[in-house]
Amino acid sequence: MIHTVAELHREVTVDSKKIGIALVGCGTVGGSTARLILDEKDSIKKRTGLDLNLVAIVDKDFTTAKQLNLPETLFQADLDKALSNPAIQVVIELVGGTGFAKELTIKALEAKKSVVTANKALLAQHGKELHKIAQDNNQVIGFEASCGGGIPIIRALTDGLMANSIDALFGIVNGTCNYILTEMIQKGTSYASALADAQKDGLAEADPSLDVEGIDSAHKIVIMGGLAFGAQYDLDSVPVKGIDTLSSQDVTFGSEMGYVIKLIASALKTKNGSFLRVEPAFIAEDHPLAWVSGSFNAVSVYGHAVGHTMYYGRGAGGNPTASAVVSDIISIGNGSYPLIYGQLNFDPTVDKAAKQLDSSEINRRYYVRLAVEDHAGVLARITKILSDHGISVSSIHQPEILSKEESGEEAPSLVQVILTSHKVQERVLLKALDEIESAGDVQKGSTIIPILDEHPEFLSL
Amino acid sequence: MIHTVAELHREVTVDSKKIGIALVGCGTVGGSTARLILDEKDSIKKRTGLDLNLVAIVDKDFTTAKQLNLPETLFQADLDKALSNPAIQVVIELVGGTGFAKELTIKALEAKKSVVTANKALLAQHGKELHKIAQDNNQVIGFEASCGGGIPIIRALTDGLMANSIDALFGIVNGTCNYILTEMIQKGTSYASALADAQKDGLAEADPSLDVEGIDSAHKIVIMGGLAFGAQYDLDSVPVKGIDTLSSQDVTFGSEMGYVIKLIASALKTKNGSFLRVEPAFIAEDHPLAWVSGSFNAVSVYGHAVGHTMYYGRGAGGNPTASAVVSDIISIGNGSYPLIYGQLNFDPTVDKAAKQLDSSEINRRYYVRLAVEDHAGVLARITKILSDHGISVSSIHQPEILSKEESGEEAPSLVQVILTSHKVQERVLLKALDEIESAGDVQKGSTIIPILDEHPEFLSL
Repeated sequence: MIHTVAELHREVTVDSKKIGIALVGCGTVGGSTARLILDEKDSIKKRTGLDLNLVAIVDKDFTTAKQLNLPETLFQADLDKALSNPAIQVVIELVGGTGFAKELTIKALEAKKSVVTANKALLAQHGKELHKIAQDNNQVIGFEASCGGGIPIIRALTDGLMANSIDALFGIVNGTCNYILTEMIQKGTSYASALADAQKDGLAEADPSLDVEGIDSAHKIVIMGGLAFGAQYDLDSVPVKGIDTLSSQDVTFGSEMGYVIKLIASALKTKNGSFLRVEPAFIAEDHPLAWVSGSFNAVSVYGHAVGHTMYYGRGAGGNPTASAVVSDIISIGNGSYPLIYGQLNFDPTVDKAAKQLDSSEINRRYYVRLAVEDHAGVLARITKILSDHGISVSSIHQPEILSKEESGEEAPSLVQVILTSHKVQERVLLKALDEIESAGDVQKGSTIIPILDEHPEFLSL
Repeated sequence: MIHTVAELHREVTVDSKKIGIALVGCGTVGGSTARLILDEKDSIKKRTGLDLNLVAIVDKDFTTAKQLNLPETLFQADLDKALSNPAIQVVIELVGGTGFAKELTIKALEAKKSVVTANKALLAQHGKELHKIAQDNNQVIGFEASCGGGIPIIRALTDGLMANSIDALFGIVNGTCNYILTEMIQKGTSYASALADAQKDGLAEADPSLDVEGIDSAHKIVIMGGLAFGAQYDLDSVPVKGIDTLSSQDVTFGSEMGYVIKLIASALKTKNGSFLRVEPAFIAEDHPLAWVSGSFNAVSVYGHAVGHTMYYGRGAGGNPTASAVVSDIISIGNGSYPLIYGQLNFDPTVDKAAKQLDSSEINRRYYVRLAVEDHAGVLARITKILSDHGISVSSIHQPEILSKEESGEEAPSLVQVILTSHKVQERVLLKALDEIESAGDVQKGSTIIPILDEHPEFLSL
């Protein structure tokens, strides 16, 4: 069997293989992808024997294409004409969204073209259906560019780490959020002002909701978690909390305790099932994920044999995304990706234990901030209720507030109490907080932020 | 073409494929590999459709194998018997060294078995010859485990980053050295005492020379640099400096200036050629490589499109190495690796500009420590000579030394002067230092340590 494949390949590479490509959607990423294919054509041919032949650039608006001096002879407004061209074997979908992009992907697959896409929303919402259509048509969908931009994280999960059962995956997979959080941490600015800076620098959209509300990260964890655990997750089952309600005082209090705030997309496997989730979380400042700053992305993967590995790089932008798109085309062209893709389980859950559990059951540590009326007995009442719920407090901190007599100023009516808990289920903590807040001397809507500890690695190396 | 491969695969996976494996060399890594294959057999079959069938464990001594409760029915002292067994398609070479390991690899390839190895010394010294034999026999050599343990860095270079022309690669690829340096940095201990600790903790061999002299790192940079630049480098052409002559005062002085000392294996490409090198170097404390501590490894790769990416994980140990070995077997079994391997250029230099240049020509910044007699005029003379050679000093620091009258103690006869240079070629710097040392008031053998600045990324994202 092995010989057959090797021999087949040897015959094939004697002649250089020509891969006909149609690129649909020529915006920032599309433009960079077209440039990369055209500029690196000779170099890629020399290195791989593959002749990447860009046949058509399909769009309605060629403004970006013209700005990049892409050859106008490739411009094509008629998608169906491109899809019926037998010289085209691969269609690059870079239109975004889940409407026309889905239609286009299905059309291309049914026309017996493989599809390469950077569209995480499309795959998170319709992956199961689209992968089925691809398989039925003996085609593949390449999606390295959908998670972590140019970081080859999809290949790590589908090839490099295949000997492992993946235990956990923690990702910083949205550059806009990480840029905003880095500004908040380093400059102590508010969320609103850091967002405005990011928008000014072109690192956040005018409507930033997809990013800051954590939706984009949720798309990515559905894709990566599915690959890691051999399951197909429903986007709606993933609890998502963004950074848009984050207060700068929590960022600061966390810093003082040695934690760095990050928007973490996580997938954890336990013996009962898995937890997928997106939320702002505190990471200990000596964990590698805490170092990832600015618009960079990183994904920490814990395999049962390999232990902790991490993949770091630019998670967005034209050239990094184009790098992943074109690498996918090369892997399709040399035939390796179809063999890897053929092994992937997009439909059934291979591991029954990989079903998504209610994440309020995860057992972990929490940071809690309460706004409390400054009178005798309130702290005693809070700690009593926590203790009654079996919640063990590992640290408690109340910044010193001077009285009017001491400071000469009006003392605030509410003081902030920060505590950290030992491991507890979120639903237990929320129940206790509900009771704490019901007495009237603790403001409703206390802040809770999970503290993600180092995932336990295998014990023997 | 694409359809053919996909269709071929679809036929093939209808029946589960059985891959017969002989493991040669059952020490720490061999034992972990055998355990991983046996323990994960069912899980891998479920996830990939491949049936990894360990047919023989070949060794002379089965002490480790017995300790791990490996099935004695697999023990086989007769290598030739294993190699003539038609049920075996893949031979795992884990005997180490370049003598018997080479002989065994050739025998296996000629017996039409593919080989998977973790042996960097073997490939760095005989890679060209062995890859040729593999190709002539329509077989492959899997070597993911040879660099960075379980980190899938070989796959990143040969698959995930294929759209890129790689500009530079900086690796911390020896866990023993990184552990020792981390001890020196964090505890301020001497090299000798940190080495003794590492030996006590089982993280350094009784004879640590292969690690601490940088030879192991050189093997890895020859392999990774060759893949990155499509060239075949001669191990002897790579300048190698280890950590064994490093002084703790340089580690401390560097720290005070915001630098972290690391043993860096680097491969740089310029328009005239490439520089491969192993040496202790200072990294700015905010560069991701500076964060890699203890026995962890990491490789920074700069691609012209993707920009900066980094791959982090455990670079050694039984289970992490076994993870890479078994992932290679899976990729051979599903047929994807033979297609990737077939593209690699092990013989000719694809890019003429990839030839190894004399690395004393690299232009970079340096840290210099001079032991100087404490008398008037010596600093003026030093800076004059540097200036005469066109070397521009960016900082100069002389720790305050009190005279006998001021401190009541005998002042040392020599004082340490630390300076950092702007970019300069090493040969120019060495010439200037030679002149500086020739006057007799500066001790011979001044310390120079390069300062590696962030590699310039592409400018437009």
